[in-house]
Amino acid sequence: MTPEPLTTRLAADRARIDAWLEGLFAARTPPSARLEAAMRHGLLVGGKRLRPVLVYAAGRALGADEALLDAPAAAVELIHAYSLVHDDLPAMDDDDLRRGQPTVHKAYDEATAILAGDALQALAFEVLARAAHPRLPALMLTLAEAAGRDGMVAGQALDLAAVGGQPDVAALATMHGHKTGALIRAAVRLGALSAAGDDDPRVAALERYARAVGLAFQIHDDILDVTGDTATLGKAAGADAAHDKPTYPALLGLDGARAKADGLLEEALAALVPLGEAAAPLAELARYMIERDH
Amino acid sequence: MTPEPLTTRLAADRARIDAWLEGLFAARTPPSARLEAAMRHGLLVGGKRLRPVLVYAAGRALGADEALLDAPAAAVELIHAYSLVHDDLPAMDDDDLRRGQPTVHKAYDEATAILAGDALQALAFEVLARAAHPRLPALMLTLAEAAGRDGMVAGQALDLAAVGGQPDVAALATMHGHKTGALIRAAVRLGALSAAGDDDPRVAALERYARAVGLAFQIHDDILDVTGDTATLGKAAGADAAHDKPTYPALLGLDGARAKADGLLEEALAALVPLGEAAAPLAELARYMIERDH
Repeated sequence: MTPEPLTTRLAADRARIDAWLEGLFAARTPPSARLEAAMRHGLLVGGKRLRPVLVYAAGRALGADEALLDAPAAAVELIHAYSLVHDDLPAMDDDDLRRGQPTVHKAYDEATAILAGDALQALAFEVLARAAHPRLPALMLTLAEAAGRDGMVAGQALDLAAVGGQPDVAALATMHGHKTGALIRAAVRLGALSAAGDDDPRVAALERYARAVGLAFQIHDDILDVTGDTATLGKAAGADAAHDKPTYPALLGLDGARAKADGLLEEALAALVPLGEAAAPLAELARYMIERDH
Repeated sequence: MTPEPLTTRLAADRARIDAWLEGLFAARTPPSARLEAAMRHGLLVGGKRLRPVLVYAAGRALGADEALLDAPAAAVELIHAYSLVHDDLPAMDDDDLRRGQPTVHKAYDEATAILAGDALQALAFEVLARAAHPRLPALMLTLAEAAGRDGMVAGQALDLAAVGGQPDVAALATMHGHKTGALIRAAVRLGALSAAGDDDPRVAALERYARAVGLAFQIHDDILDVTGDTATLGKAAGADAAHDKPTYPALLGLDGARAKADGLLEEALAALVPLGEAAAPLAELARYMIERDH
């Protein structure tokens, strides 16, 4: 059997989750049309949908029922989208551009952007709660832990505290491990738990994969911020330096950062070996995540 | 059997939920100490704990296992606390004082307040996900719906849109029905569902009670904003008028607003009749909610 090319599968999974997310706004008369429009803007304008794609790929690697994967995929993307809306706020990173479009507080206003982010977070848990999923409590706990004070939000707080400081590589890894790593690990875990219990060694293997891929992804993001251009990135290139944020290229040099990302890719691929052919799409995804140009 | 006085039971339930919430911050080494401290400030400084008290009272009225009530009570208070932290932000109501203390963005900073609110919301769902509760999916859905774009956050958006406008009483009721009503109804429902299924007519009776009490509570809040003083309220008196917000006293006059609150109290008490003596604490709570001075 010839494996389906990654670009085809990626495009299909993206179209699938985009349609699913779009469906969350269909056939509704929302109490606040402005809030709803701001939520749509934050969620549906662009986006690589990497986290949903990871949910699908991890679930399939363990033989999950496909129908169980949409709600967790949507939930993790809703958390990601809300975090971007809040990160872009004037009191946070103060960014005007995201995915080539005005950020939510630019397109609407600051109060509406705060509320849209809040409502996107609630919607993540609502979507998951509606899924008739046999492991719902474990999925809920995975998402809530990854999103909150021990995961993504803590990472954002560490990131703000690091501005203008001189953290070392270990502190940078801790920050990113929370800020972006937690949700990437959650995406892989949500897919895995859709197929297998926590005591399945394949779930632990996917956890090792996710940990390596999550950090490699962030290092590559730092590299793109230095080497990319605003048009391709869809957000301001050079923003990290402009915000005086510590980055891997700043600490390790560009070549050092690339070598670290490559080493993590090897770790991720090694973790997949016990899963055999079923994990081939996850391997391709790992390569894609550190070779993408935006 | 002599019924326990409300003040004693209220105080005991408040102490119980305060200890439970305090426990969420015990024996932890948080990734971000500043985020954790801001969350504590937003959650643990003062607060009447009315929503948790409603969870306990509604659950007991239907004979719930007491041990099942703590997590839903904590979850609904965490949602309430996060909403106050965000409502107070400069881009929203821009309040300096809450429960007689500096608001979170005043005590810390704006970015930390945004993140603390975000993390309190995630913690609400985490706490609920950890509860080994037989009706967990229904509880999750109840809380998420009440918190989000069809509930509390929509109400906040409608509130912002109403500033300086001329809404009628129906529009004001819609706004408050979302902004404060949704979470009060959720509190009662979380307690009820801890004891009974959705098809139990007592759950529907409690829903009618909660709907009336939620609106009465808000009308009384509007009245207190006119008649109370800052020291007793713990927040700025006259803030509604200063923010040019529509209120029941402004639309109906003080006497008209009081009469409306009294009518809603009667509705709430009538809804409890089929539940008999077990609902006596809920009746007392309803009276308390529209007679309190802060």
